[in-house]
Amino acid sequence: MDMPAIKTKKNVSKKALITEKAAQLFKLKGYNATSMRHLAEAVGVEAASLYNHISSKGSLLHEICFAVAAAFAGNLQEVERSDGNALNKIEQLLRFHIRMMIDRYDEIYVANHDWKHLSEPGLSEFLQQRRLYEKRIATIIEEGIRKNEIRNIDPHVAVLVLLSAVRGIEFWHRNKRNTSATGLEENMIAHLTGGLKKI
Amino acid sequence: MDMPAIKTKKNVSKKALITEKAAQLFKLKGYNATSMRHLAEAVGVEAASLYNHISSKGSLLHEICFAVAAAFAGNLQEVERSDGNALNKIEQLLRFHIRMMIDRYDEIYVANHDWKHLSEPGLSEFLQQRRLYEKRIATIIEEGIRKNEIRNIDPHVAVLVLLSAVRGIEFWHRNKRNTSATGLEENMIAHLTGGLKKI
Repeated sequence: MDMPAIKTKKNVSKKALITEKAAQLFKLKGYNATSMRHLAEAVGVEAASLYNHISSKGSLLHEICFAVAAAFAGNLQEVERSDGNALNKIEQLLRFHIRMMIDRYDEIYVANHDWKHLSEPGLSEFLQQRRLYEKRIATIIEEGIRKNEIRNIDPHVAVLVLLSAVRGIEFWHRNKRNTSATGLEENMIAHLTGGLKKI
Repeated sequence: MDMPAIKTKKNVSKKALITEKAAQLFKLKGYNATSMRHLAEAVGVEAASLYNHISSKGSLLHEICFAVAAAFAGNLQEVERSDGNALNKIEQLLRFHIRMMIDRYDEIYVANHDWKHLSEPGLSEFLQQRRLYEKRIATIIEEGIRKNEIRNIDPHVAVLVLLSAVRGIEFWHRNKRNTSATGLEENMIAHLTGGLKKI
């Protein structure tokens, strides 16, 4: 019988380190091209000893994708419960997306690109969470239109524009010369919330 | 000595068909996973006879990427020369991008995703054309700001928002249920040019 790994504080931080390195490698090499041996090298342990902490490469991908989804869902819940009009809520959401794209870029990149390698039932669950997330943002916009806080716009198209634009921060990462992180955030907010204002 | 293929009308249209099928397959299977045999099957000829029309898989990718780049560059030149203020010019550009994403989706998808498989000197040339393209859009926005036609915004961030948002039409292709092509175009224009208007 396998002995379950004992969850000491050291184990927990080792696990976090492994997940962090996995996100870096998946982003750099691609999920398929990353082997457990690459990961062991990056962490600085023997490949065999990785299995004391994690069960498979797939479980790491699962963990990364669902941690990202949970962070966004948690923030959305806070935004939904907050005071303020619909446009403020969209602004709060956007700021969170922009900062995640800047501060936790490796994980977000992996969740955006490699979710398709998730195994079932994780894959379906992930896609369902994403659909629900987008629907809840559309609902905030719909309410904003009804309350005259947001211009009359197709909420689904607005969600597409908002989420695609923040995802485009990928291109900023490849060429940061022109703009600081703060400049990026403030100008994106101006452009994207400006386009939702009543005219 | 190889005989050069004679460019009859039939050959030209066969070539166009091969390029079209290549774009479909590269998008569907990915560039690396597409073989000349797959392509021959899709076109309905023997693999060997493909080589009467094209020299390699790489030359097809080159052709697709540079045809897309030329279409965008041609349109940009027209827009630059047109009358109208800067915001109108950005609107014209966006409408062209949106329609290309709808009407020539396979090619655009391949140019957006598979350019990295181009061989040199094509790769450097393609990236240089893309940088120049983005710079010229930023210049339109800069002029618009100077002439008080566009709000004071970082032109590089605005270009990032505009191009990332239209690229997001990928997600619309996967789920068109909610919005017609016209609805998509008009609502994207409202959101993205609305956010550039003077306030």
